[in-house]
Amino acid sequence: MEARGWDAVIVKGSDPHGSEYFAPRWEQVRRISGFTGEGDLVVTRDAAGIWTDSRYFILAGRELEGTGIDLHKTRVPGAVMIPQWLAERFCDREGTVVIAVDGLCQDAMSIKEISEAFARAGHDGDEDGLRIVDCPDLPDEVWEGRPAIPSEPVITLGEDITGESREDKILWLRNFLIDSGCDAILVSALDEIAWLLNVRGSDIPYNPLVISYLVVSLDSVDWYVTKGRHLDEETRDSFEELRSEGIGIHGYDEIDPALSAIVGDGGRLYVDEATLNYHLYSLLEGDFLVPGPSPVPLRKAVKNETEISGIREAHLEDGLAVEHFLYWLDQRMSLGDMITERDASEMLHALRADIPGFRGESFETISAYGEGAALPHYVTPEDEPPVLQPHGLYLCDSGAHYLFGTTDVTRTVPLGPCTELECEDYTLVLKGHIDLAMAIFPAGTCGAHLDILARNPLWQARRNFGHGTGHGVGHYLNVHEGPQSLRQNLSNVAFRAGMTITDEPGIYREGSHGVRHESLLLVVDAGKNDFGSWLRFENMTLCHIETSILMTGLMTKEEIQWLNDYNCRVYETLAPRLEPEVAEWLEAKTAPIAY
Amino acid sequence: MEARGWDAVIVKGSDPHGSEYFAPRWEQVRRISGFTGEGDLVVTRDAAGIWTDSRYFILAGRELEGTGIDLHKTRVPGAVMIPQWLAERFCDREGTVVIAVDGLCQDAMSIKEISEAFARAGHDGDEDGLRIVDCPDLPDEVWEGRPAIPSEPVITLGEDITGESREDKILWLRNFLIDSGCDAILVSALDEIAWLLNVRGSDIPYNPLVISYLVVSLDSVDWYVTKGRHLDEETRDSFEELRSEGIGIHGYDEIDPALSAIVGDGGRLYVDEATLNYHLYSLLEGDFLVPGPSPVPLRKAVKNETEISGIREAHLEDGLAVEHFLYWLDQRMSLGDMITERDASEMLHALRADIPGFRGESFETISAYGEGAALPHYVTPEDEPPVLQPHGLYLCDSGAHYLFGTTDVTRTVPLGPCTELECEDYTLVLKGHIDLAMAIFPAGTCGAHLDILARNPLWQARRNFGHGTGHGVGHYLNVHEGPQSLRQNLSNVAFRAGMTITDEPGIYREGSHGVRHESLLLVVDAGKNDFGSWLRFENMTLCHIETSILMTGLMTKEEIQWLNDYNCRVYETLAPRLEPEVAEWLEAKTAPIAY
Repeated sequence: MEARGWDAVIVKGSDPHGSEYFAPRWEQVRRISGFTGEGDLVVTRDAAGIWTDSRYFILAGRELEGTGIDLHKTRVPGAVMIPQWLAERFCDREGTVVIAVDGLCQDAMSIKEISEAFARAGHDGDEDGLRIVDCPDLPDEVWEGRPAIPSEPVITLGEDITGESREDKILWLRNFLIDSGCDAILVSALDEIAWLLNVRGSDIPYNPLVISYLVVSLDSVDWYVTKGRHLDEETRDSFEELRSEGIGIHGYDEIDPALSAIVGDGGRLYVDEATLNYHLYSLLEGDFLVPGPSPVPLRKAVKNETEISGIREAHLEDGLAVEHFLYWLDQRMSLGDMITERDASEMLHALRADIPGFRGESFETISAYGEGAALPHYVTPEDEPPVLQPHGLYLCDSGAHYLFGTTDVTRTVPLGPCTELECEDYTLVLKGHIDLAMAIFPAGTCGAHLDILARNPLWQARRNFGHGTGHGVGHYLNVHEGPQSLRQNLSNVAFRAGMTITDEPGIYREGSHGVRHESLLLVVDAGKNDFGSWLRFENMTLCHIETSILMTGLMTKEEIQWLNDYNCRVYETLAPRLEPEVAEWLEAKTAPIAY
Repeated sequence: MEARGWDAVIVKGSDPHGSEYFAPRWEQVRRISGFTGEGDLVVTRDAAGIWTDSRYFILAGRELEGTGIDLHKTRVPGAVMIPQWLAERFCDREGTVVIAVDGLCQDAMSIKEISEAFARAGHDGDEDGLRIVDCPDLPDEVWEGRPAIPSEPVITLGEDITGESREDKILWLRNFLIDSGCDAILVSALDEIAWLLNVRGSDIPYNPLVISYLVVSLDSVDWYVTKGRHLDEETRDSFEELRSEGIGIHGYDEIDPALSAIVGDGGRLYVDEATLNYHLYSLLEGDFLVPGPSPVPLRKAVKNETEISGIREAHLEDGLAVEHFLYWLDQRMSLGDMITERDASEMLHALRADIPGFRGESFETISAYGEGAALPHYVTPEDEPPVLQPHGLYLCDSGAHYLFGTTDVTRTVPLGPCTELECEDYTLVLKGHIDLAMAIFPAGTCGAHLDILARNPLWQARRNFGHGTGHGVGHYLNVHEGPQSLRQNLSNVAFRAGMTITDEPGIYREGSHGVRHESLLLVVDAGKNDFGSWLRFENMTLCHIETSILMTGLMTKEEIQWLNDYNCRVYETLAPRLEPEVAEWLEAKTAPIAY
């Protein structure tokens, strides 16, 4: 840094497409800092810090201890984010501040935020005061043997699965371009590309995506995707199908010259600075660039009837597998067998892998016993996975991709006697889960309005959880999908019928236990009356909720009624397809409880 | 308009200080349109419209019928506000669009919003495309006999009432100026001036304010306030007290040249564009102007111990008066007497006026029987005020200023048998009122997060109300006070201990009945634990809540417990100071109910 005159280096925990999860090639933060959670690293000449959210506070505290790297907590009151932190650090510095970034992994908007923060701090945010150096090969320099850009097989999905042809989606996008007075749009977010083209891949673990860029103009569609000459048969067929519809297939690295050409022609190009990387952005910067939020996420979030049917089917199949797994766990624990967290997740994987259409887990299974469950994003250690004990709570948060839908479900179950605090935490978290699921709300309601429903029972007992309450789930796409969300952030995205959202309150007690109950909700129409248009939730997840350790005295009539109805529906839906002994076990598990 | 080449005229429902309520001099919207609610009027050459919120939809519908003036609803999903409406109307127009405004009554920010809306609509938002004509005397031209600027007596409040001297408040403001790198601040919001100088007046009905401007620099304080040579004795004494502390007293109309002088000296002047009027703003425009939100509202909103004691006292005295009033009403109704809505509000006024320190109502009393109560901001008609009937619901929303605090309370009471729908509405609104009052929440929580607590019981029955759930209340100051609020708007102002907020859910059924329950809550500290810092509400209002028409089957154990505890506290606090027959009546009214 000193040799190059850099004052700070930002190492962003992302890839060139603004992805939340990314291929091993882009694990530069882990590589440099040793921190294995999600976060960004900033290094100055006399300090270093990781910025991460509450899901990783405990993990970061452990992994960063003694490294000299500070933990900066995000999404907490008074959080100082990287732009502000840098601006404060350098506001009194004479001369130009030089910040180096890997422009490929840094989104354009975050660079803007840095300039703005410097301007606010009284430092010139322009060339004289602040200089951003784009080093797209930065990780290569410090990372021998860095993995190549992945190039896994590409498949296409038919309209029987997606409910809408790529032709219709492109037509819709072109109408958006016309309305915006633009000639073309550069789509760089990978799930937007997968949805628009009805393609899926596996370039990123747990995310069925294809690393690529897409440019849609008023008369052409160009996909920048190939990373070598040798394509497998599946991919060749997929590309052939796309070409037959007039879609141009190009090399992934041809995006730079292609964009320069578009812009050279004087066309107006629409880009989303939140996902466009700074490297491409700085090639393009100029009057012909029209920045704005991509219209794709909102439209993609509202599922069509075909997608909803597929999601229902996915939850039926997935529910059978999870119930089978819980039955197996119950039996093995009663027999006194030794089961590790890893044995459990492997069993669950095996049950799901048998389902026709299974395409892999939608995220790394969290199979967490006792204190492990106190880490919201716990990963079972490779060596010596903890053994499940015949007491306390076991939490399993898992999900799968099927060709027809994606699941994400968490159940917390007792493996034997539980402490009073465990039972109370279990009950309060479940109350929040149910209160949210029961919500009826007018059109225009956002996640920030509803979020408290899942927290209020905990808040009344002065307890809380540090993560969001819910996220959208894609249709055989990313398990985290926006723009809707259910959290305290004051985002103005209103729920619409057809959107999915998880309902996953929790509680985490370091060194002791954790509880989370998660189901996937679908937003559905609930009619109109004099007071307006109404929406409510339909619970898509089909997996019973354990009642044995509930403190029913803490629950309302309505909550118990909801729970009995839900468990009854799970049993009636799944039992006909379960083996008799599993069905019998489930019948007992779903027996109604009294108020 | 045609003669002057104007395309549109905006008549703003406000005064030169951005006030919500204003003196008769600034009732230009009512004068021109005939609409008596709060709203703004826009007139183009071929259209006219009133923009107002849900409190006035029914009223506006009635008053604007046949006038050719359209009703534009604000604060509803998809609302088109004035800037966007104008931009859409004129976006295809060739040449310059000329919009005339009374720059005194139009805040600077709203003019900015118009320019931005024109720019977004593709029309040049600059001089060539859009010209704003400032006509500070516009209402004079069409309004013969327009009232003069009011000049009522000014009083000062001692530290025994305010808890903080004006010297300390000015010192704090100067520190803010130093932190902001400014030389002076222009304060134009009247309640900010009253709070900073510890002065009160009565220039605006129901608002204890003095129409004036205040300029605080690092070494001077100048108040632009006098409107003539003849001052009453009280005001002379007040001004003398201020002068003795080094505060300059000047003519209200001297603000223009004074500001020009400050700016001529090259000083940096901090202004809040949300309350600064466009007339002054356009005199000042330039590099030395530092726009930003005024720091006063947030500090003013957090009441100190002296203010809180005063507010408590105000609620005790006010509670005695309201209980006495409800007792009188009950007795008179049982006797079969004929009482009008006006008789009732006059009785309530008389009871309050007897209290030492009474300074007038804090807003016009809403004394509404039956269908009248279906208008959230109902005003009893001057002629033939409705007579209370011995059945159905009577709603009374009222409040008063005392030297030591301000109140705002609504109670809805049955005057005899009620319909099942009335009882159900009454119960559901009360559930929301109680659920909000019971809230415990972590530091950082905003009004938009908590708002649903007051709505959820109604939402579950697909019912709702169109106004906000709560507003701050000043300390012998405006009954509507920010920056905190309790509504669906995604405002990021977090609650802090010492803030006040009303809790006033309601329901309104046009032509039938209305219900609202309102108390004033104080935000108080609720301790710290592993999960963070906690806040809760303390109910300041002391007036029992009627239980006779409750559908207790709809309520939870906790809600009934809260209600019994509250009514018991009201009785125990007030009874010792009530006449024996009133105390006896209140004892019966506050008897605990069973779950």
